[in-house]
Amino acid sequence: MQILKPAVLLYFLFISFCVTSQSDEDVIKTIYSQSLTNGKSYDWLNYLSNQIGGRLSGSLNAEKAVAYTKEELDKLGLDKVWLQPVMVPKWVRGIKEYAFIETPNGQTTIVNICALGGSVATPSLGLKANIIEVKNFEELEALGKEKIEGKIVFYNRPMQADLINTFEAYGGCVNQRYSGAMEASKYGAVGVIVRSMNLRLDDYPHTGSMGYEDLPNDKRIPSAAISTNDGELLSTMLQLDNSIKFYFKQSCKQLKDVQSYNVIGEITGSEYPNEYIIVGGHLDSWDLGDGSHDDGAGVVQSMDVLRLLKESGVRPKRSIRVVLFMNEENGLRGGKKYAEVAKQKNENHVFALESDSGGFTPRGFSFDCNDASFNQVLNWKPLFKPYLIHYFEKGGSGADVGPLKTETNVLAGLRPDSQRYFDHHHASNDTFDAVNKRELELGAATMTALVYLFDKYGVNPITNKGTIKK
Amino acid sequence: MQILKPAVLLYFLFISFCVTSQSDEDVIKTIYSQSLTNGKSYDWLNYLSNQIGGRLSGSLNAEKAVAYTKEELDKLGLDKVWLQPVMVPKWVRGIKEYAFIETPNGQTTIVNICALGGSVATPSLGLKANIIEVKNFEELEALGKEKIEGKIVFYNRPMQADLINTFEAYGGCVNQRYSGAMEASKYGAVGVIVRSMNLRLDDYPHTGSMGYEDLPNDKRIPSAAISTNDGELLSTMLQLDNSIKFYFKQSCKQLKDVQSYNVIGEITGSEYPNEYIIVGGHLDSWDLGDGSHDDGAGVVQSMDVLRLLKESGVRPKRSIRVVLFMNEENGLRGGKKYAEVAKQKNENHVFALESDSGGFTPRGFSFDCNDASFNQVLNWKPLFKPYLIHYFEKGGSGADVGPLKTETNVLAGLRPDSQRYFDHHHASNDTFDAVNKRELELGAATMTALVYLFDKYGVNPITNKGTIKK
Repeated sequence: MQILKPAVLLYFLFISFCVTSQSDEDVIKTIYSQSLTNGKSYDWLNYLSNQIGGRLSGSLNAEKAVAYTKEELDKLGLDKVWLQPVMVPKWVRGIKEYAFIETPNGQTTIVNICALGGSVATPSLGLKANIIEVKNFEELEALGKEKIEGKIVFYNRPMQADLINTFEAYGGCVNQRYSGAMEASKYGAVGVIVRSMNLRLDDYPHTGSMGYEDLPNDKRIPSAAISTNDGELLSTMLQLDNSIKFYFKQSCKQLKDVQSYNVIGEITGSEYPNEYIIVGGHLDSWDLGDGSHDDGAGVVQSMDVLRLLKESGVRPKRSIRVVLFMNEENGLRGGKKYAEVAKQKNENHVFALESDSGGFTPRGFSFDCNDASFNQVLNWKPLFKPYLIHYFEKGGSGADVGPLKTETNVLAGLRPDSQRYFDHHHASNDTFDAVNKRELELGAATMTALVYLFDKYGVNPITNKGTIKK
Repeated sequence: MQILKPAVLLYFLFISFCVTSQSDEDVIKTIYSQSLTNGKSYDWLNYLSNQIGGRLSGSLNAEKAVAYTKEELDKLGLDKVWLQPVMVPKWVRGIKEYAFIETPNGQTTIVNICALGGSVATPSLGLKANIIEVKNFEELEALGKEKIEGKIVFYNRPMQADLINTFEAYGGCVNQRYSGAMEASKYGAVGVIVRSMNLRLDDYPHTGSMGYEDLPNDKRIPSAAISTNDGELLSTMLQLDNSIKFYFKQSCKQLKDVQSYNVIGEITGSEYPNEYIIVGGHLDSWDLGDGSHDDGAGVVQSMDVLRLLKESGVRPKRSIRVVLFMNEENGLRGGKKYAEVAKQKNENHVFALESDSGGFTPRGFSFDCNDASFNQVLNWKPLFKPYLIHYFEKGGSGADVGPLKTETNVLAGLRPDSQRYFDHHHASNDTFDAVNKRELELGAATMTALVYLFDKYGVNPITNKGTIKK
C-alpha cells in the first residue's frame, strides 16, 4: 500500500471538501465542462473503431476490444478492474454476399445484400427462385403454401416515416427481420430477402439478428437484407413482371460457442459498498462497419463516466461500476451472465444505466422504475435544463441491463437524438466519421450527472423496502 | 378566373370544415406527418445545393436561386408571388488563395486559408512578413505599434468548447474575424490571419464577413481565415521560433453594387389580411460550399411552411408570407429592404419567424417579444412535446427579421441542435450530404406548427394596442 504524503492528503481533503460543499448545479457544471474540454471518450472510440474495427461476438476483434478496454480501465486508477467470463455464440459471415435480379429474358441487375446474423448459408452455388413481395405476416398467411412454396419471400414493409422516435418505427418493422425466415419457411419458401431497417433510401444493406427458434435444420432457410434503394427497385420490377427471379449467395455459418468476457471496472462505495450503480454499453458490434454508434459510443461514454466522476472530485458513496457487455447483438449472453453473477453474490443493484442508442446529441433518459422513483428523477430535471436535456419519460431501458430488474431498483437508457441512428445502424456506414465529438461527450456528461445524483441521493428511500438512506 | 365545379367546392368546404373542427393537436399532427411523408424541403434543397450551389450575393448563382425559388413558389398556387428589388454588394473571391509558413532556413509548409468576405487582396505577388499571435484585442493593444508594425497578426482565440450552445461560443470569438483587420491596422499590421470559427480540429478554412468601417483605403489590410488544424500548427511553430514568416496571396475584390431581389410568396389572410406573419431564411450563401445548412435549409423550410399549411387544410386568417432574403451574409440589404417597404406600406407584421441556424433536428425557438406574448407562447409548449420540441426561451430571433421589430410584435428564430453547425458553417463542407432529410423536415413542420398557432390565435390581444382579436 502506498503511503500518502501530507501534501497529497491535504489535496484530497481539499477536493473532498470542495465537492461536499458544492451544489449539485456546480458539480454537474464541472462534469460537463470536463467532458467537453478534457473528455476521453472520443479518443477511446477512435481506437476501438479505427484500430480495432467491427467486433462481432467470438471474433478476434471482439477479444482485442476486451483486452484494450481492460487495459484502459486499468490506467484509470479504479478500485477494481476485471474480466467476467462468458461463453458466446460465434457466427461468421464468410465471403461477401452476392445477389442479382434476373428478368425472363436473362438480363441481370446486381443488388446490395448482406446475410442476416444467425442465418444459414445458401447452397454453395447460390439460390435462384421466383420472388414474391409481402408487407407482413398476415399477407404471407393469406397467400399460403400454394403461392409461396419454392419461392423467395421479399419482406418490404418500410419503417414508418411519421413516427418521431425512430426506434418506434424500427420496432414496427423488425419482426420481418427477426422472424421472417421462420414464418416464410412454414409455407415452403426457400429463402428470405428483407428490406433494410433504414429510413433513408440508400445503397447500404443493414444486417441484424434473426432466429429460427426450434425449427428443424432442414427447414432453416437463408435470410438476407437488401438495401432500401434495391428494395424499391425489386418492388418496382416485381410490379412490372412478377415472373422475375432473384439469385443470392451467402456462405455464413454458426460455429460452436467460444469463450469471451464482460469487462468490468469499479469504484467501491465509501458508505454503501453493497449498493451498486452500473453504467454500461456493449463491446460487441456487427461486422459490417466499425460499430462506432452501435455501440462503441455507449462503451466509451460508460468508461468515461467513472473517469469524469473522479476528475470532477466526486467520491461515490455507493459502488459505481462500468460494465462493458459482450454479445448484446446476437445472444445477450453478457447481460444475462452479469445479472446471474450479481444475483449469486447478492449484490444490490439499485440503479443501472445503459447507453445503446447511438452517440448523437443526448436528449434525456427513459426509465424503467416505479412511480416513486420516477418522481424522484423528475425532481432532478431542472438540473439538466442548462444542458438541453429535457426528455425524462417512463419506458424501456436497455437490453443488457434488463435482466437486473427488481421491483425497487431503477433501470434507465440514455436517449440521444434518434433521427440519424437508423441511417447507420448495423450497416457498413456505422463508422467513426459519423460520430461527432461534442455530441458523444455531451452524452458521457449527461450519464455522469445522473449517476452522480443517484449516488448522492440513492434510490427513493420510501419504496426501497423501508430503508432510509441519505 | 376559373369557375369551381360543385364537387370541387364541396371538397373545399369539407376540408375547411375538417380544419375548423379539428383540435390543435390534430392539425399539428397532420403538419408533421405531411412534412415527414410528403415534404418538399429536401428536394428543393437538393436542387439549390447540387444544381445551383454556393450563392454569394451578386453572383450568377444567387440570381439562379432567385429565379428557381420564384418558379417553385409559383407552382404552389399561393395568392401572390413576387420579386422585391434590392441592390446588393458584390464581393468576389478571385483565384484560390495560397499560403505557407516559412522557417528561417527556408523550409515551407503550405497551410489552408481563405479570404474573409469583404477583405481586400494582398499585393499581386502576395504578402510575406513575420507573424505574431494574439488571443484578443487587449493583447494586441498591450503589444502596441512597436511589436505589431510590419507584421501579420494571427488571431487564435478558439471557440469555447464547454458552452452548450455553440452560437454562444461563436459570439465569443467572431469579433476577431469581423474587426480583426480594423484593429490590427491601427498598430501598423500588414495583414491578418484568423483562426477559423470551428469547434473541430480539421483542415477547412471558414470564411465569413469582415469590415473596415470608415478606415481609409490605404489602411485596409488583407484578412484571411486559417483552418483550425493549421492554426494549431502555426501556433506551435511560433512557440518554437517566433522569427518564422507567413506568406499569403489572395485576389479578392469589392465590386460595385448590383441589382438583386428578395423572393416573396403570400397566402392572403381571410379575416385580417393586413396582419402579416412572415417566415423566412436567406437565399444568399457564402461561396465555398453550397450553403446547404447556411441557409439553404432555412429557405426550403420556409417555402414548405406555406405548402404544408395548404396541404394540412389550414386556411389562414392572417396573411402568411414566405420571404427569401437576399444578402444576409455580407450586408443584410434584403432584410433592411423588406422592413423598409413594409413600413412604407403600413403593413402590420405581427409575427416573423426566421430559420438561419442550420437544418439539424429542431429543438425549439428563441423569442424576441414582450412578456405577455411570451407567456402566450409558453401556453402552446405542450402541443410541441410529442415532437420533442422543448426549447422556448426569450432571446434573439434572426438577422433578417430583426429590422421588423416593434414594441408589440413577436420575432422568433428556429433553434435546431447546434452541436454540428460550426463544423460546416461558411466552409467548403457546408454541403447537401451534411443535411439529414428527416431533421430538415422536422424543422419545417415545427415552424409550420408555430405559424399555424400564431395565425389562429393572433399575437397577445391585451398588449396589442388594446385591439381584441380572436
